[in-house]
Amino acid sequence: MSGTLTVVGLGPGDPRYLTPEADTALASAQALYGYGPYLDRVAVRAGQSRHPSDNREEYARAAAALDHAARGGKVAIVSGGDPGVFAMAAAVCEAIETGPAAWRALDVAVVPGITAMLAVAARIGAPLGHDFCAVSLSDNLKPWELIERRLDAAASAGFVIALYNPVSRARPWQFSNALSRLRRHLPPSTPLVFGHAVGRPDEHVELTTLEAADGKNTDMATLVIVGSRETRVISRSGRPPLVYTQRAAEVSA
Amino acid sequence: MSGTLTVVGLGPGDPRYLTPEADTALASAQALYGYGPYLDRVAVRAGQSRHPSDNREEYARAAAALDHAARGGKVAIVSGGDPGVFAMAAAVCEAIETGPAAWRALDVAVVPGITAMLAVAARIGAPLGHDFCAVSLSDNLKPWELIERRLDAAASAGFVIALYNPVSRARPWQFSNALSRLRRHLPPSTPLVFGHAVGRPDEHVELTTLEAADGKNTDMATLVIVGSRETRVISRSGRPPLVYTQRAAEVSA
Repeated sequence: MSGTLTVVGLGPGDPRYLTPEADTALASAQALYGYGPYLDRVAVRAGQSRHPSDNREEYARAAAALDHAARGGKVAIVSGGDPGVFAMAAAVCEAIETGPAAWRALDVAVVPGITAMLAVAARIGAPLGHDFCAVSLSDNLKPWELIERRLDAAASAGFVIALYNPVSRARPWQFSNALSRLRRHLPPSTPLVFGHAVGRPDEHVELTTLEAADGKNTDMATLVIVGSRETRVISRSGRPPLVYTQRAAEVSA
Repeated sequence: MSGTLTVVGLGPGDPRYLTPEADTALASAQALYGYGPYLDRVAVRAGQSRHPSDNREEYARAAAALDHAARGGKVAIVSGGDPGVFAMAAAVCEAIETGPAAWRALDVAVVPGITAMLAVAARIGAPLGHDFCAVSLSDNLKPWELIERRLDAAASAGFVIALYNPVSRARPWQFSNALSRLRRHLPPSTPLVFGHAVGRPDEHVELTTLEAADGKNTDMATLVIVGSRETRVISRSGRPPLVYTQRAAEVSA
């Protein structure tokens, strides 16, 4: 049994974010698995088979890739951003834990990538410059009540919050509910950064406030960063503003 | 005034983590600024000046680099990991906000990198596979009381927690105090991952539990990941264990 499975982070989209480690892992694979649009980002190489699948089929995709590796293949499964952040690496581990014993014997590796919140933060300054958290607003696998509890805890303790998966066609109301929840804890002037498709041709970054945000232009390709009381906006004439979170903080925050 | 300042994330150390975007930014700079050991990782190129500085001099380093750029230079300031996560990008923004008006007119960019928690998580599976937060244990710029409040909030709301800067020579007791604080909220069996110098030749990853952890081998090059109630350990015969956080969670968590 010499099969291997590597879970590869592609970063935000453009090849300029693809690490040499990820590029090497992709080049040496015999078979590539992944959500179709992510797989489309990977250069076509002779002798590699490609196995695209639909979104929201993470477990089935992981199982298919593990099965392929267990038959001796050198398999890569691709993930947008970082595979360990709301992406494929956890699904692969879950499949290994619950699947056939042969899957535990496989050589499994994860190759990290630039996750969306780092790319969005870099575009506008340093909004994640101090303690922060990442919350997925998808309630497909956890109850909405738990998401609200986490937003309460994070906002009231002064964390900057990166919101992944803010909305989808099947989850239309979650993001505006999250904004209402955050307004209980944070001042109306709190900076919000909306990063849409960062690292791709249709990239768009918008700065607004908790008071003004409505999320009308938010979709699955959007990552939202909610500031804390230490997050500041620097206006610059003729240049876009910079947003950053101060390194110093007080208990009153 | 045609000066530029780019804050470049080098990732965890090894060149295999350096993105093409970061490599391009380094190659095109006329002057490189940074903490000495980080600057030592950057290839020497003809015609570039190098300006190493000591640790804990972030503001002075940022000011020197901005001043150089304001005199028309094409300047890069390097950062380990991602510059936006407990690193140089916030210090640069702070200097721009408080410094001379000319600094606001500069073309400033941030190039993201693989931050330590992503590299450590990738080594052992997917411990950041669900909602998580990042907390710096350094109380140089914020009171310890605030750090405790954030640990309380994160642990009791079910976040996985990545601890940056767990100890230093000047901060010997903070990490064991943090462990005591976390034990109020989390079961003794909670998995803890210690990632030391990940991505560098002396890399070492250790899996333990909240009960057994003592932090004796922890230093400034260590990143600690504290699991949640959904974090699981998969034992594998002849291979290191995998650690991951389940995507599904319950309110009772």
